[in-house]
Order: sequence, then structure tokens, then C-alpha cells
Amino acid sequence: MAIKYPNPTQNNTQPNHLKSQGMMFENALNLSNEYYLNKGIANIHKKPTPIQVVKVDYPKRSASKIVEAYYKTPSTTDYNGIYRGKYIDYEAKETIKNLFPFKHIFPHQVEHLVSINKLGGIAFVIIYFRSFNEVFIFDIEIFNELYTKGEKQSINHDDALKYGLKVPLGYRPLIDYLKVVDIMIDRKN
Amino acid sequence: MAIKYPNPTQNNTQPNHLKSQGMMFENALNLSNEYYLNKGIANIHKKPTPIQVVKVDYPKRSASKIVEAYYKTPSTTDYNGIYRGKYIDYEAKETIKNLFPFKHIFPHQVEHLVSINKLGGIAFVIIYFRSFNEVFIFDIEIFNELYTKGEKQSINHDDALKYGLKVPLGYRPLIDYLKVVDIMIDRKN
Repeated sequence: MAIKYPNPTQNNTQPNHLKSQGMMFENALNLSNEYYLNKGIANIHKKPTPIQVVKVDYPKRSASKIVEAYYKTPSTTDYNGIYRGKYIDYEAKETIKNLFPFKHIFPHQVEHLVSINKLGGIAFVIIYFRSFNEVFIFDIEIFNELYTKGEKQSINHDDALKYGLKVPLGYRPLIDYLKVVDIMIDRKN
Repeated sequence: MAIKYPNPTQNNTQPNHLKSQGMMFENALNLSNEYYLNKGIANIHKKPTPIQVVKVDYPKRSASKIVEAYYKTPSTTDYNGIYRGKYIDYEAKETIKNLFPFKHIFPHQVEHLVSINKLGGIAFVIIYFRSFNEVFIFDIEIFNELYTKGEKQSINHDDALKYGLKVPLGYRPLIDYLKVVDIMIDRKN
């Protein structure tokens, strides 16, 4: 079976890699961050998933084997790093519905992003609406207002268009979200 | 048996919590970061240990149980976050010998810190010399010079006094390393 390589000659103005190839949003973000890193543009990484290790076996002549462990609730967010000298911090979410329910983010993660914003960092939630094949960034100030106002249980596509900043999708990087971060940095300066 | 509570009236000018209580350096750093966070001074966290999950059991009516997993090499460093609007990134090390061998840090971690420094972040290695009960910060520029010059295999106490910045130890926070970060930020401005 032939491996499907991305075709660099395709029309980059109407990219649909994310949707057509069924790529997970997280993977696409990781690849985009790798691109930024290799170009010397930014240094942003996904944090490892926190795991509580309970029992480890130490077999002779081979690596320690974890035999009992559990997933823990992350104390902060998915991604952080540096761009244009600024501290960047965000939570990445994907929804297959045409809305993003607030229950899919932990209150302490929102609080963490609010704290980062207060300390002068660039903090946001980035959401991929798979059914629209669109990615939006929500500045934590706006997100937190929608989140705490209590009138809404979710962000739908209309809200996204109204309150979010649309992220250009492309070939390299797949998700060119630093273009939107540029706007956010310039607004705050 | 009585629990030994720290005594707030003790002489803070000669603190020795780290040594006398046999506290792990990492724990002391985490508590210091918690202090900074609660005071609204900084938001700096230890990243979770990266673990490669191989097999997970999904028992009914209880949490997913990881039954086979392995420790992975960290792709970046131990700690990162924000202070005074700056991106902060560092690797923390502890040595019971009177020197720190370079083989205890991965080359790609040094490269990561060099990259952060280039992008305008504050990047360093913080080392606790347990036998001296002293903590030193090495700016990544200086550390990388010692590391790549090839003449040295380690940093001894004399090197620490010459090339490092000594971190004040206290009661709250235990390791007041942001005092040294202040000096680093002011030098770079």
C-alpha cells in the first residue's frame, strides 16, 4: 500500500489537511509547533500528560516498567512556550459538534489562563470546530467573560465568529496560529 | 510522635531547611513556586514526567488503569512559566557530591535552553550542592560555554562561586531564586 505523502503543489489557499486526512487537532498543532521551532520563530511545546505512578517493576537488564499508574487531572494547560519574547500559554480543544461545551474545560485551567494574562503573558483557548474545518482563538479575557457570565453553556459557531479570531490553515505550518498571536501581542502593546 | 512544624520565629538568616530536613530539592522548588503563585508574583510549574503508555485496562465502574508504561527522555526541561512578563525556563539539578557532572544533563536540554535564550527568554540551570547546602543559578550562556568548551567534565564548588549566582535560601519561600532572576532580567534590559 502506498503511503500518502502531502502534495506540495496543491492549492494552499484552500487547505483542508486537517479535515480530509482526519488528522487529530493535537497532532496538527504539534507539527505546527515543530515547524515554528525549526524555523527559529518560537519554542512552544505540549506538556506531557500527567500520570500518577503507583508501581514500577525493575527487571534485570531492561528498562524500568511501570505496571500500575493512573491518569491525573492536568494542573495547568496543554501548551506553553515563548514567541516574540512573550510567554505564550494555551489550552487546545477539538469539537466534532457545531459547538464547544464549557464543561470540556476545567475551571482551574481557565483560572490558570486568567493568572497568566494578569502577569503579562499571552493566554488563550484554541478550538477546532471539525464540522466547519475552522480553528478559532479566544483571548482568555473574552473567553472568561463568556465562561463566567453564566448565560451560556457553550460557544457555538456564531459566537466563534463574533468573539474569536479565525486562524489561517495552510500547508506549512498546518495551523498558522502565531499569525493570530501577532494580532493579540500588537493589541496589548 | 509529634509532627515537626517549621518554627516561624527561627533565625531566617541561617536557614538550613533543605539540608536539615532532608527535603528533596525538587519538592523545595515546587513549594517555592507555589508560594510565588499564591502571592501573584509568578506562575511557574514543573512539567509532568513524560511517560510512554503501552497498555491500559478499562475496568467497569472504576478509573482507567495503566498496566504497561515506560519513562521517556524529557524533550525539554523541568520547569517553565512567567515572571515579570518574561518567559522563564530552567532545568533543576541536585548533587550530593561536591561537583555537578555534565553527563547528568542531556545535550538537547542544553540546546533547548540556548534556543530559549535566543528567543528572549530567561534560561538557566539551577543546581543544589547538598554537601555545601548551597544553590546556584547558571545563566545558560555561561553554562553552555563551560559545557561546550570541552575542558571540563563538571562544575565544582569553585566554578559555582566563580560562574554562578548564589540563590538566597529562606523560610518563605524556601528557595528565593526569583531574586537571582531579577538580577538576570535587569542585566539583559
